Amino acid sequence: MASNSLKRDLLTILNSNQIRTGEIDRRLYSYDSSFLATRNSFIPDAVVFPHATHEVAAILKYASAQSIPVVPRGAGTGETGGCLACRGGIVLDLSPWNNVDEVDTSNMQAFVRPGVVHARFNRQLSDHGLFFPPDPGSSQMCTLGGMIANNSSGLRAVKYGTTENYVLGLRIVLASGEVITTGGVNSRAIKNVSGLNLTKLFVGSEGTLGVITRARLRLWPKPAAKGLVMATFRRLEDAPPVVQEVYRAGIMPSGVEILDGTAIRAVNMYRPETALPEVEAILLFEVDGSPPAVEWEGHQISNVAVKAGGKAEWSTDPQRMADLWRGRSLVAAAAARIRPDGTRIFAGEDISIPLDKVAQALREVHRLSAHYGITVVSFGHIGDGNIHTAPVIDIDSPEEVERADALVDAIHRLAIELNGSTTGEHGVGLVRSGYAAIEHGAALQAMQKIKHALDPQNIMNPGKIWP
Amino acid sequence: MASNSLKRDLLTILNSNQIRTGEIDRRLYSYDSSFLATRNSFIPDAVVFPHATHEVAAILKYASAQSIPVVPRGAGTGETGGCLACRGGIVLDLSPWNNVDEVDTSNMQAFVRPGVVHARFNRQLSDHGLFFPPDPGSSQMCTLGGMIANNSSGLRAVKYGTTENYVLGLRIVLASGEVITTGGVNSRAIKNVSGLNLTKLFVGSEGTLGVITRARLRLWPKPAAKGLVMATFRRLEDAPPVVQEVYRAGIMPSGVEILDGTAIRAVNMYRPETALPEVEAILLFEVDGSPPAVEWEGHQISNVAVKAGGKAEWSTDPQRMADLWRGRSLVAAAAARIRPDGTRIFAGEDISIPLDKVAQALREVHRLSAHYGITVVSFGHIGDGNIHTAPVIDIDSPEEVERADALVDAIHRLAIELNGSTTGEHGVGLVRSGYAAIEHGAALQAMQKIKHALDPQNIMNPGKIWP
Repeated sequence: MASNSLKRDLLTILNSNQIRTGEIDRRLYSYDSSFLATRNSFIPDAVVFPHATHEVAAILKYASAQSIPVVPRGAGTGETGGCLACRGGIVLDLSPWNNVDEVDTSNMQAFVRPGVVHARFNRQLSDHGLFFPPDPGSSQMCTLGGMIANNSSGLRAVKYGTTENYVLGLRIVLASGEVITTGGVNSRAIKNVSGLNLTKLFVGSEGTLGVITRARLRLWPKPAAKGLVMATFRRLEDAPPVVQEVYRAGIMPSGVEILDGTAIRAVNMYRPETALPEVEAILLFEVDGSPPAVEWEGHQISNVAVKAGGKAEWSTDPQRMADLWRGRSLVAAAAARIRPDGTRIFAGEDISIPLDKVAQALREVHRLSAHYGITVVSFGHIGDGNIHTAPVIDIDSPEEVERADALVDAIHRLAIELNGSTTGEHGVGLVRSGYAAIEHGAALQAMQKIKHALDPQNIMNPGKIWP
Repeated sequence: MASNSLKRDLLTILNSNQIRTGEIDRRLYSYDSSFLATRNSFIPDAVVFPHATHEVAAILKYASAQSIPVVPRGAGTGETGGCLACRGGIVLDLSPWNNVDEVDTSNMQAFVRPGVVHARFNRQLSDHGLFFPPDPGSSQMCTLGGMIANNSSGLRAVKYGTTENYVLGLRIVLASGEVITTGGVNSRAIKNVSGLNLTKLFVGSEGTLGVITRARLRLWPKPAAKGLVMATFRRLEDAPPVVQEVYRAGIMPSGVEILDGTAIRAVNMYRPETALPEVEAILLFEVDGSPPAVEWEGHQISNVAVKAGGKAEWSTDPQRMADLWRGRSLVAAAAARIRPDGTRIFAGEDISIPLDKVAQALREVHRLSAHYGITVVSFGHIGDGNIHTAPVIDIDSPEEVERADALVDAIHRLAIELNGSTTGEHGVGLVRSGYAAIEHGAALQAMQKIKHALDPQNIMNPGKIWP
């Protein structure tokens, strides 16, 4: 649409410093962290910076009347194109709206605005002996609004669950501009089974149902102690049964991570001094809780690993734990450097696999990697089967990009075939909408009915989730 | 509708032994555990016993075509009239459909049919070292289908969360007769953020959106040890800060229960040999985990309680723990016997209050109890603020019933006023739909839009949730 008339209309709602329509400004909002964004340019017609619910409401009411797409955006750290204006329209940059309105320590909850950065939030909570358990890798940048919209998680999800477990209520502007509060208008209750669970419906809805302008989050007491076990296995197939055996011992670690052979090689190439053992699998078990619990669980896990033929070391010393974590911490950066002309692309990178098929999935990914001649570095949250399979390619080679596309498609289909999902925590956005029909079958139409009921003109983040 | 033609139609779908239309048979389905059900008779036109998804689908397709209400029912242990055919129609008794199709121990999940009884399920899981954490008081009778439909919980919710945290996917028959599978058609993944979260929308929807015919549930490793702290406080107001202080110590007990003075007196009258101290509050902290964790946490909690002026005893001995639990175990039965002509009614019995207002709420309930001249026995899950305030009345006195109605209304309004909810775990059903508008405001219309999108003729459990 004509940028000038849009700007004029928006000026009736917002101040001029809350609106950007210049080309360079708009181009800055044409990408996120997805591989897709490096190959396409989705330039919005306008970018606005609302910082009140009534402003968002006025924008949505206007956009509904004019059938203009509206795309909510946090820090742009997403890997699916979820915050891109693939059909033009207005991007709502919610990242500057970053107040923590209140930390209610008595009731272990907080009221936050969408732009609060995850790591900053947890630093603030730390002073109160509390924490917000979901822990995405992009913690230093990503916003709580984005985490809620994507139902983000990270390595602690195995014990603590995903973002949805910690959202007690949301203030939401619907497509019509109407404002609702889910979880009870003035509620500070932890438990509430009154009415349909709109809160959890909106968590993970990727901005397709409305705009989150405030969230009531449940907090958790910070555990008194942590420990870390590193266990190495010559054969990949020996690792998953050890995870299962740890669970059978009644232990639920706060993180269970894997580096497979590809990830180990990547880290050793990137930082030779790390000197990870050249095995097929390294498992890292983080345990948390009271000091004696951590002690007991660390020993038990080490014993289980050794009994299964692995080697294990464990520690509660912060320095040594940081050393043992190093491989895992470096792997994302290391993957990008595995070849001089290589770039780690965010595509096919987030499969979720039942635990008893993780080894098979990783073997298959190795086979696909060889077949397509593209390195894939695999690591991630084996505890709940959510593996990051990161292709590394020369993005300037169209031929290689084409092969990568085929590889990514094969990885996604493999995940579904192994009773898994194409996405454990990163979301669908633009890049995985083609698999929604296979994953969900007839349920996809039920989702569409709900979408249509709440956003009949399809202005909220159109083109995402559904093909 | 004419019973004969309904029966004839149903016989085209089901065998005759799956259909009941006789008056006595239908009367058996005219009540649940709610007080409401003792004063009204909601007799369905037919009761059917489907035991296949395609049978449920055929019934719903027929009911949609004829605009006949359909009411799913489990064990009938609900306390809200949620499973009653308040507008006639067909009751689906799903309780005989009680197969555990599979326990997938490798992936810590189970596939169950709606009629599986909770306690039986956990006994079966115990052999695998696993458990299903939600733990309603009606465990010996209630069905998993009913628990999912109501998002049930119980005393362990404080640590483990409610039923919704353990539902990975559902097979659902929609009002149209269409069958969908949420959480991924063939998925056994633990983490999955693909698409709208229909699973969690259906959990707690009280049968208003469709019929659950199969559920994929997440299981948890059984903790190796348990311990119990009993702490007594002369002043009610001293109890909630102790709960907060325990959380601040980084401890999340698996249960935090309270008996207030009314509950203590009820238990001592009912079983004098229990000899509970006549104080204003007794707290019970259950902790679970590894043996040393339980040991450490039990000591810490005792110390916190004593420092706050309470008396504390704690144990890991099963016999002594059973003794300490006795008061809590007996309180539901004891409440009914607090006066010879008394009946504990299930009305106004499930408020959820922010922890920092629980003492105030209980004082207010005492005041209301005195004002209306009706005994209220109060106890429950103080850890998450979910208190059971149980009125005890002579149900044969119309005058007393009238006062009870006024008291129950006042308790519900009090809960909302104190930033709580009218229901923490029992649900809305028929009995609390009048408060939905106050609790949810404009969000209620959004819920209605979703309901209408999935059930345009309002055949699924009509008259529930919405006023």
